[in-house]
Amino acid sequence: MQISTYRLPEDVPVHFCMNKTAVVIDVLRATTTIVTALRNGARSVVPVAEVEEAVELSRNFAPEDRVLAGERMALQIDGFDLSNSPLEFTGERVGGKTVFLTTTNGTRAIQGTQAAETLIGALVNASATGQYAARRERDLVLICAGTLGHFSLEDTLAAGAIIHAIKEIDPSAETDDFSLASLLLYQHCDTEKKMHHLLDQTEHYRRLKDLGLIGDLEHCMKQDSMPLLAGYEDGSVSIIHE
Amino acid sequence: MQISTYRLPEDVPVHFCMNKTAVVIDVLRATTTIVTALRNGARSVVPVAEVEEAVELSRNFAPEDRVLAGERMALQIDGFDLSNSPLEFTGERVGGKTVFLTTTNGTRAIQGTQAAETLIGALVNASATGQYAARRERDLVLICAGTLGHFSLEDTLAAGAIIHAIKEIDPSAETDDFSLASLLLYQHCDTEKKMHHLLDQTEHYRRLKDLGLIGDLEHCMKQDSMPLLAGYEDGSVSIIHE
Repeated sequence: MQISTYRLPEDVPVHFCMNKTAVVIDVLRATTTIVTALRNGARSVVPVAEVEEAVELSRNFAPEDRVLAGERMALQIDGFDLSNSPLEFTGERVGGKTVFLTTTNGTRAIQGTQAAETLIGALVNASATGQYAARRERDLVLICAGTLGHFSLEDTLAAGAIIHAIKEIDPSAETDDFSLASLLLYQHCDTEKKMHHLLDQTEHYRRLKDLGLIGDLEHCMKQDSMPLLAGYEDGSVSIIHE
Repeated sequence: MQISTYRLPEDVPVHFCMNKTAVVIDVLRATTTIVTALRNGARSVVPVAEVEEAVELSRNFAPEDRVLAGERMALQIDGFDLSNSPLEFTGERVGGKTVFLTTTNGTRAIQGTQAAETLIGALVNASATGQYAARRERDLVLICAGTLGHFSLEDTLAAGAIIHAIKEIDPSAETDDFSLASLLLYQHCDTEKKMHHLLDQTEHYRRLKDLGLIGDLEHCMKQDSMPLLAGYEDGSVSIIHE
């Protein structure tokens, strides 16, 4: 099994994911939010690139069956039901509903993998995702969403957590240089406290902190707190029941 | 002072280096070779992208004043005097001469920075380069050459070593996420032995090892063994005397 990790979706070579499993990672906050929504009973989450597209697609559902959610510049979109804060995706708000989610970085990445199978990865479901990928025995591509076209350390740490879980099952899994670097960076942060301390020096984490979203940051960094598998198929994400 | 680090030359946004100091890093082996050639008395090193261009440019010099050097797929080019192995760049071979060097990754990167000042960085001159950059007080861009368009761990470690040296002089220097990751990875490898052990799991290092170039690998990893400053200006690299 060969594991490749990419800093950004646009770094992945065309057709590279064909016949491989892809995991899209946007820890702050799209993929954490998707996992949270599913854990809290959302029927499925439809990741959408543009605001207008989200509104348009949601019209196919009755108002009581849909939720419009998303952010631009980390803030809620006018007329939407929810922002991109995972804490808003409670059972009461999303239970039994289809969530249309549009975000700056993560949702675009999910739509574009062209992989044989696409999973949604975050720190909150890192080990479960790694264990599943290891059992699939297909080559794996970890695609970090990044922040506005730049490398994001928090996504790399989640990639490292997934690789760590795979290596525990399959020590012979081969890593490219970026996967190896991700694994080392993750192993460097072996406690949640260390992770917060490190990320407090990074751009995206600090911006969310400055916006007062401390609760979001705590939630997003809780490794393996929601050990479910989320798969993207035919335009929407739902829980994979093995 | 703001420090930005890039995985590959093509990741650097257009015009980003304007008014900044750039350091191009290709540990295995172009920038290590350039520093070695200068340390051993080469008058200057002209980095060239194409083989034909190297031959053409070298014709402006008398045979006794020039050296043609370079590699493709890590091997010496037909008709050239030297390969890209730094160990070949002895005082006897390059002393007093102008070296025309063409390599797969590094020499292209050096030509393209468009920075206010471009330095040549490697592990062998990492601390000297960092200390100089810190004194310049201009924003800094560390450009890793990578390997055939992919992230290279050894270049990132050298970037981390340079950032480490800067932080010792100017702890308030700000790092983007990739610079912070580079610094952590470097600090993880605090001995030469650990560095070799880690890089033995990486692609480029292994390929050179398989080619029997162990001496090159030892030479390239000796941090601060050649503490000189190398600057690229008007098409060639020479020692900066402060």
